[in-house]
Amino acid sequence: MRFVRYGERGAEKPGVLDKAGQVRDLSSVVTDLAGDVLADLPEVDPESLPLAEGDLRLGAPVGQVGKYLCIGLNYSDHAEEAGMDIPKEPILFMKATSAIVGPDDPVILPRGSEKGDWEVELAVVIGKAAKYVSKEDALSHVAGYTIANDVSERSLQIERGGQWTKGKSCDSFGPLGPWLVTLDEVGDVQDLALTLDVNGARVQTGNTASMVFGVAEIISYLSQMMTLHPGDVIATGTPPGVGMGFKPPRYLQAGDVMELSIEGLGKQRQRVMRDG
Amino acid sequence: MRFVRYGERGAEKPGVLDKAGQVRDLSSVVTDLAGDVLADLPEVDPESLPLAEGDLRLGAPVGQVGKYLCIGLNYSDHAEEAGMDIPKEPILFMKATSAIVGPDDPVILPRGSEKGDWEVELAVVIGKAAKYVSKEDALSHVAGYTIANDVSERSLQIERGGQWTKGKSCDSFGPLGPWLVTLDEVGDVQDLALTLDVNGARVQTGNTASMVFGVAEIISYLSQMMTLHPGDVIATGTPPGVGMGFKPPRYLQAGDVMELSIEGLGKQRQRVMRDG
Repeated sequence: MRFVRYGERGAEKPGVLDKAGQVRDLSSVVTDLAGDVLADLPEVDPESLPLAEGDLRLGAPVGQVGKYLCIGLNYSDHAEEAGMDIPKEPILFMKATSAIVGPDDPVILPRGSEKGDWEVELAVVIGKAAKYVSKEDALSHVAGYTIANDVSERSLQIERGGQWTKGKSCDSFGPLGPWLVTLDEVGDVQDLALTLDVNGARVQTGNTASMVFGVAEIISYLSQMMTLHPGDVIATGTPPGVGMGFKPPRYLQAGDVMELSIEGLGKQRQRVMRDG
Repeated sequence: MRFVRYGERGAEKPGVLDKAGQVRDLSSVVTDLAGDVLADLPEVDPESLPLAEGDLRLGAPVGQVGKYLCIGLNYSDHAEEAGMDIPKEPILFMKATSAIVGPDDPVILPRGSEKGDWEVELAVVIGKAAKYVSKEDALSHVAGYTIANDVSERSLQIERGGQWTKGKSCDSFGPLGPWLVTLDEVGDVQDLALTLDVNGARVQTGNTASMVFGVAEIISYLSQMMTLHPGDVIATGTPPGVGMGFKPPRYLQAGDVMELSIEGLGKQRQRVMRDG
């Protein structure tokens, strides 16, 4: 199943794609794709639901995200590009949930931003609470997968004192979507191609097969420290080709267009803007 | 006014303290101390409300926290103790909101935890959304203040790969409370004494006068990057005396009792436990 949340920002309704890729209104079945609904996603024939009407803008395909966890340097070739060692354990940081936007919403660089950058990532949405789970059991706690653009401002991330959080948490730096895709549709999550284009030119190409730590291992690892709750999101790291890795580095400008894809998970498209 | 949330965990009701320090039930006035309620806290005579009944356990005095931001090394003397330079800009990291518990709930060290540590901090609760606010205007966006214990696991924070998030985000590592105290009751927020005792012996003593970056400056600074929303919490850093700074370091053991106080903001008391 491919679930969506559609409508005006902050008032998204739940939906599901039918065979033709049209959005069907799921709001007679669940109030939102959030919280405990994610533990037991409705199995319904999309064709039996009414076509969605009104504003079909897509929001993030999961609501009420409690925490947005991110794994750093999780593709060996990206770690190399960033001039960092391949990590011995998953590197964890967080993105503010207030940064989350829909898959095609504009990405807005904050005032004074100089080094906006892109990162296509496979995002995991937790369905069932996970604490101290084994690697073997980990995927049973997943509601589904989606695409994340882990938009980053490298000067805030790296040059402005210590931790990465600042450069990851600006408003609109968390496009998620378009769909929440259930595991049965995804197939092998460790064999998905990822791409990111800027202004029509391919800059990132990768495959989840190159992850240093796979999805199951990441979930198990994090759950040793903290409970993963329904609706938590984990972005699992980015393959090579970020702007910071270009020689010379290449950063986002107002008017740039980012297009992201992951095999089976659809596409995102964001226009870059700048706060005046 | 001194607001509280009381009752069973996850089902706290809003309350307010009367002159005698008894909890009065505020649930006829507001459904929760969360979200937009924080922008315009009810001005009500506590004496006119019924005494709270049932489970008087205190929860965190703010519900539905969207993001829990923390400022690192914000007391010059603590930075020295940690062997770090005094930061030129506020150092930002985040604590998972799933770590939040009430002021007197147990602190539970996760399996394998070796280096649990304490940090008494002044916590700011945002009342009105703040984006690009000036230092002069910053405090008008505050709903009130409370105490935070920024419980930390130093091996996870420092020795296990990169960022600090892991060591800050374990379940129960975010005691908040007891009260949400409005600005008019607090007086000068940059002149509040802080203490933390372990097993009855004083280990941390400080005053918010020693902050490198004051509350107004922190709010203004963060709001240049991201919108601070009602219910967001900012822990503003800790004075000297954390366990890591002892020679040799001293870490939390099961059975230890932490008691925290900030002038005008009440007291916290947590017993330390360990996950089996």
